[in-house]
Amino acid sequence: MNRPLANSRDTALLERARHVIPNGMWGHMATRYIAPGYPQFFSRSDGCRVWDADGNEYLDFMCAWGPNVLGYHHPQVEAAAMAQLRDVDAGNGPTEALVELAELLTGTLDHADWCMFQKNGTDATTACVTIARAGTGRRKVILARGAYHGAVPWCSPSVVGVTDEDRAHLIYFDWGNTTSLDAAVAQAGGDLAAIMLTGFRHDAGRDQEMPTTAFLRAARAHCDQAGAMLICDDVRAGFRLDVRGSWAAQGVKPDLAAYSKAIANGWPLAAIAGANSARDGAEKIFTTGSFWYGAAAMAAGLATVRILRDTDALTHTAAMGERLRTGLDQAAARHGFRLRQTGPAQMPMVLVDGDQDLRIGSALCLAALRHGIFLHPRHNMFLCAAHGPSEIDRAIEGVDAAFADIVAQGIVPA
Amino acid sequence: MNRPLANSRDTALLERARHVIPNGMWGHMATRYIAPGYPQFFSRSDGCRVWDADGNEYLDFMCAWGPNVLGYHHPQVEAAAMAQLRDVDAGNGPTEALVELAELLTGTLDHADWCMFQKNGTDATTACVTIARAGTGRRKVILARGAYHGAVPWCSPSVVGVTDEDRAHLIYFDWGNTTSLDAAVAQAGGDLAAIMLTGFRHDAGRDQEMPTTAFLRAARAHCDQAGAMLICDDVRAGFRLDVRGSWAAQGVKPDLAAYSKAIANGWPLAAIAGANSARDGAEKIFTTGSFWYGAAAMAAGLATVRILRDTDALTHTAAMGERLRTGLDQAAARHGFRLRQTGPAQMPMVLVDGDQDLRIGSALCLAALRHGIFLHPRHNMFLCAAHGPSEIDRAIEGVDAAFADIVAQGIVPA
Repeated sequence: MNRPLANSRDTALLERARHVIPNGMWGHMATRYIAPGYPQFFSRSDGCRVWDADGNEYLDFMCAWGPNVLGYHHPQVEAAAMAQLRDVDAGNGPTEALVELAELLTGTLDHADWCMFQKNGTDATTACVTIARAGTGRRKVILARGAYHGAVPWCSPSVVGVTDEDRAHLIYFDWGNTTSLDAAVAQAGGDLAAIMLTGFRHDAGRDQEMPTTAFLRAARAHCDQAGAMLICDDVRAGFRLDVRGSWAAQGVKPDLAAYSKAIANGWPLAAIAGANSARDGAEKIFTTGSFWYGAAAMAAGLATVRILRDTDALTHTAAMGERLRTGLDQAAARHGFRLRQTGPAQMPMVLVDGDQDLRIGSALCLAALRHGIFLHPRHNMFLCAAHGPSEIDRAIEGVDAAFADIVAQGIVPA
Repeated sequence: MNRPLANSRDTALLERARHVIPNGMWGHMATRYIAPGYPQFFSRSDGCRVWDADGNEYLDFMCAWGPNVLGYHHPQVEAAAMAQLRDVDAGNGPTEALVELAELLTGTLDHADWCMFQKNGTDATTACVTIARAGTGRRKVILARGAYHGAVPWCSPSVVGVTDEDRAHLIYFDWGNTTSLDAAVAQAGGDLAAIMLTGFRHDAGRDQEMPTTAFLRAARAHCDQAGAMLICDDVRAGFRLDVRGSWAAQGVKPDLAAYSKAIANGWPLAAIAGANSARDGAEKIFTTGSFWYGAAAMAAGLATVRILRDTDALTHTAAMGERLRTGLDQAAARHGFRLRQTGPAQMPMVLVDGDQDLRIGSALCLAALRHGIFLHPRHNMFLCAAHGPSEIDRAIEGVDAAFADIVAQGIVPA
């Protein structure tokens, strides 16, 4: 199927939006940053499928940019959230679900003795930094250059509206490079509060990298030696790679970790999971939000994490990622292209080799859209447990056809 | 009814919580900050009533600290959210609800040409500052000393874990005092980006104050003269005092306003509503969050704001606030106490005159709890549209009985 996409409803909504929303849309979901022709508005989701505002159906490989890990509308998760909603969501205080979720996470994550909950990943990363500073009495925080830790002044990828002072105590190093990390630690001197690293390197528009055990151990050793906190920003990868935390297989334990996205299969929730080494700082700071105690998202989180812990959902998802990766490589080769597929297969980063300006990738994704496959040319994608072999094979066929389309348009390998 | 409160379930939950949550609970909902004996965990809510984890029922005057404006489980709001949930909540992009809500708000608020949406009030206040700096190219932000604008390093009421640089470009003045404001503006010199004021003065533990029109006009004039942005932090009061915005009756329009809490009757949502004067800054910045596009909360917001606009919900709530205020004054007088009740009656701040250390107020609130009335001794409270005359009268009776109890305990007016 190579269908012309109906888009009159999307176009009309975007026209209305331009009047009442700056640029018609803001943030990472503004599709004008993907490829012209991407739908901006959606009307429905189910399992691993989404429908845009015009009713066009897609096999989805963005999974709401991460939150969908079990499939949209997972019956057990929805039932748990609905049951909680009938009793109380936002109330004068938390419910038993708060305690149960903290117990579940500390029992499941390999590094956590305690938890706190928020709404945004940025809430969690920001409070991790505050906790580290409160606990150590120091100020410097080491971050990898180009890593995404949220979208507020201290960490936003944009510096528009940001003052120099917002980042006065940040020191940057090159991800994965222990020599660069050593230099950053030396620069922090006696003022090192924390080293914060994403679960793996997943910067937009470039090859992903898994951390080596040696690199993680070097970061851990620096923190141990300095009495500083090692923070894992696992917002994007957490509860998708490994239910025990993304560094569990390597046996390196952070003092603090930030989670969000997949933790409640789409219900708005974030969490800080800390070790006892960070408890003192956590007990000293003040952090809160109007909706951080909402019980429905916690009930959804309980159901989600239990399923991830007790079923093969994540190994299945990884296997489907490998199946997709292999199939995409073969499809590309059939049309004379070579792909760079990096990082964990269940969070695919698919770049076309030599495609410096993403011209080929953008054309490919736009063509795939017309075959009913929703991809992203520059950001890592996401698989969920609802992706089965037949959906993966259909996606591969769609991308194969999309390659044929762009070749027919005269696009050749770089 | 003066009942001993069963609290075995609450005690057991708190004991479990202490193991897996720093201090057993964090943030503004940690009841150890109210009076010892307050329940920490809740199990149910309905209308203007809440039930703690042990099943004790209370007439509620905290309304989830603001989000509950129409009554917990308002049928139209819940139906709208549920219908949206069945289609899509968190997806690959927003839904039509985003556009409809932005249209509704710009059509309802007296100052707004455009909107953006978030999850926390702090998300909105933080992005307002970023937008003001981006739009003006300046850095200084003037705030009232002691005003609450959120709980992240630049504005948190606690400075633990906060660096000096986080607040390098803030200038403080005394709320409502134009001479103090003039001095702050002079101090900012050519670098003034914004003046941010709460809808009215609602600092914890002190008398509330409504802004005079002269004060608001002075702030507006300073911003006009300096080319700076006037920001109304209406997170706490917005959609509870006036559906057009809390300064609408006074005819002073902010360039930017932050909303949250009541905007979706308990569903997690925040909004920035801006004038065209602030659109340029809004179009330049990058701000986002994983769940900011969730459609269920937007559907709830649509239903909530329409009801607030089209019914007498808010005038009814204000009238119930006045009824409560009068009754509480009379109850206090009968027992020889005098109350200081300040600010808008639907957001009651009730302090006992002369009660410097809040000893009397805390004892009173604890005693009221045993009569089934949930109050707060130090923070402003909240009424909702589900409070009717019979509930208000029952609350007055309960507080009357609570006064008798504390007198019997030997507590005398200060």
